[in-house]
Amino acid sequence: MAFTEIGYEVSDRVATVTLRRPERLNAFTLTMRAELIEAFDLADADDDVRAVVVTGAGRAFCAGADLSGGGDTFARPAHQDGGPQERDLVDGAPRDGGGTVALRIARSLKPVIGAINGAAVGVGVTMTLPMDVRLASDTARFGFVFARRGIVTEAASSWFLPRIVGIAQAMEWAATGRVFPASEALEGRLVSRVYPADELLPAAYALAGEIAANTSAVSVAAVRRLMWSGLSAASPWEAHAADSRLMTELGGAPDAAEGVSAFLEKRPARFPMTVSRDLPPGVPSWPDDPYRV
Amino acid sequence: MAFTEIGYEVSDRVATVTLRRPERLNAFTLTMRAELIEAFDLADADDDVRAVVVTGAGRAFCAGADLSGGGDTFARPAHQDGGPQERDLVDGAPRDGGGTVALRIARSLKPVIGAINGAAVGVGVTMTLPMDVRLASDTARFGFVFARRGIVTEAASSWFLPRIVGIAQAMEWAATGRVFPASEALEGRLVSRVYPADELLPAAYALAGEIAANTSAVSVAAVRRLMWSGLSAASPWEAHAADSRLMTELGGAPDAAEGVSAFLEKRPARFPMTVSRDLPPGVPSWPDDPYRV
Amino acid sequence: MAFTEIGYEVSDRVATVTLRRPERLNAFTLTMRAELIEAFDLADADDDVRAVVVTGAGRAFCAGADLSGGGDTFARPAHQDGGPQERDLVDGAPRDGGGTVALRIARSLKPVIGAINGAAVGVGVTMTLPMDVRLASDTARFGFVFARRGIVTEAASSWFLPRIVGIAQAMEWAATGRVFPASEALEGRLVSRVYPADELLPAAYALAGEIAANTSAVSVAAVRRLMWSGLSAASPWEAHAADSRLMTELGGAPDAAEGVSAFLEKRPARFPMTVSRDLPPGVPSWPDDPYRV
Repeated sequence: MAFTEIGYEVSDRVATVTLRRPERLNAFTLTMRAELIEAFDLADADDDVRAVVVTGAGRAFCAGADLSGGGDTFARPAHQDGGPQERDLVDGAPRDGGGTVALRIARSLKPVIGAINGAAVGVGVTMTLPMDVRLASDTARFGFVFARRGIVTEAASSWFLPRIVGIAQAMEWAATGRVFPASEALEGRLVSRVYPADELLPAAYALAGEIAANTSAVSVAAVRRLMWSGLSAASPWEAHAADSRLMTELGGAPDAAEGVSAFLEKRPARFPMTVSRDLPPGVPSWPDDPYRV
Repeated sequence: MAFTEIGYEVSDRVATVTLRRPERLNAFTLTMRAELIEAFDLADADDDVRAVVVTGAGRAFCAGADLSGGGDTFARPAHQDGGPQERDLVDGAPRDGGGTVALRIARSLKPVIGAINGAAVGVGVTMTLPMDVRLASDTARFGFVFARRGIVTEAASSWFLPRIVGIAQAMEWAATGRVFPASEALEGRLVSRVYPADELLPAAYALAGEIAANTSAVSVAAVRRLMWSGLSAASPWEAHAADSRLMTELGGAPDAAEGVSAFLEKRPARFPMTVSRDLPPGVPSWPDDPYRV
Repeated sequence: MAFTEIGYEVSDRVATVTLRRPERLNAFTLTMRAELIEAFDLADADDDVRAVVVTGAGRAFCAGADLSGGGDTFARPAHQDGGPQERDLVDGAPRDGGGTVALRIARSLKPVIGAINGAAVGVGVTMTLPMDVRLASDTARFGFVFARRGIVTEAASSWFLPRIVGIAQAMEWAATGRVFPASEALEGRLVSRVYPADELLPAAYALAGEIAANTSAVSVAAVRRLMWSGLSAASPWEAHAADSRLMTELGGAPDAAEGVSAFLEKRPARFPMTVSRDLPPGVPSWPDDPYRV
């Protein structure tokens, strides 16, 4: 597939997704939406991909929805380029476009690292919330600016954001619509670490490499779904049921035999299983997505 | 309405609610309970109010339940001044009085800033948990002292507190009943920032003013309900459905047109919509309160 | 009961549970699993126990599952020593062994303090997540190493961990399987405080003593269940219902009368009620454990 508004490349077992409309500060469009979803489909299907790094081309990460259409930008639902389809309606309303991307990232079978290299505003920041780890350049800035535009926090960020930074921090950023620097994002735990600009991508790849070098791909996929669905689970008893099933399915499988043997023999493990072939049925679907993406 | 145990005044688009029994360290009474609920009703109904600041008169914020009745204070349910009414029973038990205030604050359509100027103990601190942001004076002190009085953490704080500060910090404070200073509250993320005493109210008003000056009142009301109900939602798919509906309802409405146009024209926005008239039906009721307040 | 792989002793109103296989770095076995559950049953039933401290003998806390069985360690479900019993199956799968311990600790009526004196890896760290407070020695190290062994995060840690440290930190540790020092655990809020090795147990006992000296045992038991079930509750209205019932049950009971009177008389309280005799029916069971332990 030829992408026009993003880049997608795989190297050293890591897929890099690059938001690529630098002349528009990588502003979010319908095309970008569709391409991002497709990119995560590719990454999930490719056993050579152990992690995904998402970054922006040029000086911004993503400046938010493309507002070049003017004041009625948000009156034209993000899905309407292709005409509404049944699966694009939620209780009769067109699906929020940012949400389709966010929920696709949430379902990823590969861990996702946001490398936020510059402005991440509006959907530019909410799309990063279902990523596993957010790293930022010290030149990045952030803004949940929706209330300054007369709309609401989208991309399911009312679910993600208060769970990531706490409700007090979430409400302060969402109610003011303030644009804030990387230091405030770090203090508020929106990002895990801040780096000088030229050290950001190396840090993201180092983290991706740490995953790729040491772990079972099937374990990581199962753990990612367990953790995110665990955050959604009503009680630890639900988690215990999922654990019990997965420990049974994986405890006797080849990766567990190799993982334990390698540890006992003090050598690197070489895990034989693959996500495309060996994902056990007990991996939760976090929870079943009624909308599919 | 003439209040006797609180102050309520509106200035510069901000309502200030002042706990006002300074000779009793603003100890909580049945009258104060009723007046607080009434004050939040007033603030929600008044379009001139863009945010609410809650503080205490004198040297305390609120020292907790008024214990002047002695050892049987908690044997007299907080609702019984007017005689129990059906709506005041939960599964046959009289409703916890602090909880009626906390749940009313939780449902507020205006953002709520706690300006904690002194002791906030017992219900004096639990009533602040559904506020959006807590700021404190460096002379403030805090205590979840319930286990030292032979009762339990109330005001739905078992829902709010572990979500705000984490279960480990919540349990340490609740199991010891310790009274602790502002520095420990800040370290434990119970409060967002600590100020010298004379800078506390200015900081609270600056935050309220930042909201009033820059945002759509309808957006902020919708965002507040989205965020708090999102914290309660079972999954991000619920949030996505709510987002999709609200983006459809508000994306084509006048505030969105003005918000985008003002941004493109690099001028302050002047939002035409009001909460009393224009709140869209998709604003969640977080979740429907079976008890009403 | 004579324990063989743990120590259990009660002194100064605190039970100390010591993982005791120092020659194996206290690696987790079926025997240890059964003894831990039994120890928490003892602590709950003993009114002389006001808090539980869990620590490890020797230089480790718990190095994880005992892997001396080799590569098929996880192919032999942890329950199978005694043969599978109906209550040991979850949806047809043998129950995850670490989870049975974690859920037992979660249900404890006494507050639980982890004093993590050394390596806490695999089930050695996940078993600490349902403890109320984790304190660590500066020589401790931690690892959610499951993905390095080809299995998954267990012991219901997909429910506990993201609620304790946030999903970003949880995923970083779970996806890398990294072993990390106490400083990283503190920064990531997995532990509340770090101490020089010889100050760890004194700090744990000081915290336990603060609880024992100042609070009602019945209140603390009720608060513990309220808080943990509150973290699991769908909405603050559920918490309000539980509060209302407990405030009614306990507000007129002897401990509340003593607690208020002692406060007004500025003297230490001497609470007459006991957990074994006086726990009110409104104490939630967080939520009903379908598997029992």
